Amino acid sequence: MPDLQEEMKRVKSRVDDMILNQLLPKSSRIREVDLLYTMMRDYPSRQAKGMRPFLCVTTCRAAGGAEDDAILTAACIELFQNWILIHDDIEDGSELRRGQPALHLKYSQALALNAGDALHARMWEALLKNESRLGPERTVAILSEFSKMVNETTEGQHMELGWVASKRWDLRERDYYDMCTRKTSWYTVASPCRLGATIAGAGSRVLEGLREFGMALGVAFQIQDDALNLVGDQKKYGKATSDDILEGKRTLILLHLLEEASRSEKDRIVGIMNKSRGSKTKEDVSYVLSMMDRYDAVGYARKRAAELLKEALSTLKGIRWSGERESAEMLSSFAKFAVEREW
Amino acid sequence: MPDLQEEMKRVKSRVDDMILNQLLPKSSRIREVDLLYTMMRDYPSRQAKGMRPFLCVTTCRAAGGAEDDAILTAACIELFQNWILIHDDIEDGSELRRGQPALHLKYSQALALNAGDALHARMWEALLKNESRLGPERTVAILSEFSKMVNETTEGQHMELGWVASKRWDLRERDYYDMCTRKTSWYTVASPCRLGATIAGAGSRVLEGLREFGMALGVAFQIQDDALNLVGDQKKYGKATSDDILEGKRTLILLHLLEEASRSEKDRIVGIMNKSRGSKTKEDVSYVLSMMDRYDAVGYARKRAAELLKEALSTLKGIRWSGERESAEMLSSFAKFAVEREW
Repeated sequence: MPDLQEEMKRVKSRVDDMILNQLLPKSSRIREVDLLYTMMRDYPSRQAKGMRPFLCVTTCRAAGGAEDDAILTAACIELFQNWILIHDDIEDGSELRRGQPALHLKYSQALALNAGDALHARMWEALLKNESRLGPERTVAILSEFSKMVNETTEGQHMELGWVASKRWDLRERDYYDMCTRKTSWYTVASPCRLGATIAGAGSRVLEGLREFGMALGVAFQIQDDALNLVGDQKKYGKATSDDILEGKRTLILLHLLEEASRSEKDRIVGIMNKSRGSKTKEDVSYVLSMMDRYDAVGYARKRAAELLKEALSTLKGIRWSGERESAEMLSSFAKFAVEREW
Repeated sequence: MPDLQEEMKRVKSRVDDMILNQLLPKSSRIREVDLLYTMMRDYPSRQAKGMRPFLCVTTCRAAGGAEDDAILTAACIELFQNWILIHDDIEDGSELRRGQPALHLKYSQALALNAGDALHARMWEALLKNESRLGPERTVAILSEFSKMVNETTEGQHMELGWVASKRWDLRERDYYDMCTRKTSWYTVASPCRLGATIAGAGSRVLEGLREFGMALGVAFQIQDDALNLVGDQKKYGKATSDDILEGKRTLILLHLLEEASRSEKDRIVGIMNKSRGSKTKEDVSYVLSMMDRYDAVGYARKRAAELLKEALSTLKGIRWSGERESAEMLSSFAKFAVEREW
């Protein structure tokens, strides 16, 4: 069986080639339009793991489809990830993305917002190109899954932003899962897998299994992402450490901490988290981190992630594949990687 | 022949009904998601003329198609207008929209940006519903025209924002037309008409005629919009008067003024226009307005709009319709209205 990392790289490079050489425009005689194209090509040109295109292609093969049929859709999943990151970075006030300044800081917020819209539209345009290879019916099925994916993601994003905006703290683990399945699970796991299966012509039982697999693994992936944001190596991870504390994010780690902390500790933590990004001091961040340490909040969240991974793997095992056994096994390896990765 | 205004209202009300009762979600048990839906329904619930859906439906009828086949697509054009206005208002720092506070001022910028994305995705989702009535091939043709429309609009928007950001003033009428055909002509005239014709099954000659018609009328429409922004009645128009001066917009009116003004007047005007929105004083705005008055810059631009209208009407006359004569005549009436309207 090929190595997971090598396989992710191989698929990513096919997808990158298609995005940069076929799907996105390269230059324009009009100076400003040329700059727009440069901006649209910026995030797609930065280094990224390419987990989502890998999932699409590998699920397609596991379900008996051909890799070549899935590359275009896999590239569109990567386009989705890129435009939504441009907008997320504006919404969250993030400064770093993939080790470089966020697009709205490199150019301006107005231009970055518009470039995100332009990239969003190119995603749908590119999806239409599936028609010649897969026919109109399967193309419409692919477009429907994309609709579902964007709808869920924007709802999850609104939930997270809304909690911060309204200073809501009456939240429990259940609320975190409600938000996280929407914000992360669909676009990171469920839809990439379901798209691959749809391209291969899989039936509704496989699709339903992949939805379940995606919901569990997506949350486990996000918990690990939240953990890396706090305790990860910034160079490997590519985002600024403790950004989530600065942005006031309601992670599972933080929600667990608030349940465990004493009344006075809780008040101090909530007071810090409610401050705007700019007015949070280094001491504020250190205090929250030290409390997380005292109550082993990261350890607790990682235990939940491990349970979710187990659930996901058992769902995956129950799916009746009609394609390559090796690809199905690769999906298991990926699931473990998603939760155990250091970047 | 029914009255143009009555006809626009009639189509708009059919489209509104579809958007608010069929296409957009109404409520969610999750408080934050419910707020997202409220935000998505906000601009579509405000009063608007509905010119674009009218053009789509009327062109469909003129080309021999059935109105009922065009309503869904007309509703999607209106959804496009709504999501892009949410984002434009953020990009331009606009304060008023349709007589009420812009969405990012009513809620927050982050939530409004995300709500715009959510509405954008619903547009594509709704477009897919065309399949059951029009079949997959015509549905894909409609989606392709939407891609073209969004691509052109974001490029035009970037040009306009880019000029302001880079303080570019070496611009001529040609540049204004390059920007304006992209920013306005496609989504306001060309695509709505071409979509109606596509639904009716019109051939490439009709589509090409409508492209030409759209390019000319779209610019004429924008010139009138620029004029109303300066000298219109704010209550009728629904946007803040002189917003374009505050936002530093390179309108045809302003470009003409800069060509006519003396060296020292030009320097003063450019100095004012280059200031940020917040640092422009009332006196600054009055000075620019008085110079426009002295050099009859609005009069000049309106003359160009009248010429473009003539061009558009002559193109329209050359199109061989295969449907209702009345609808074709209605398109002429609309063209005149677009340039002569006071709101």
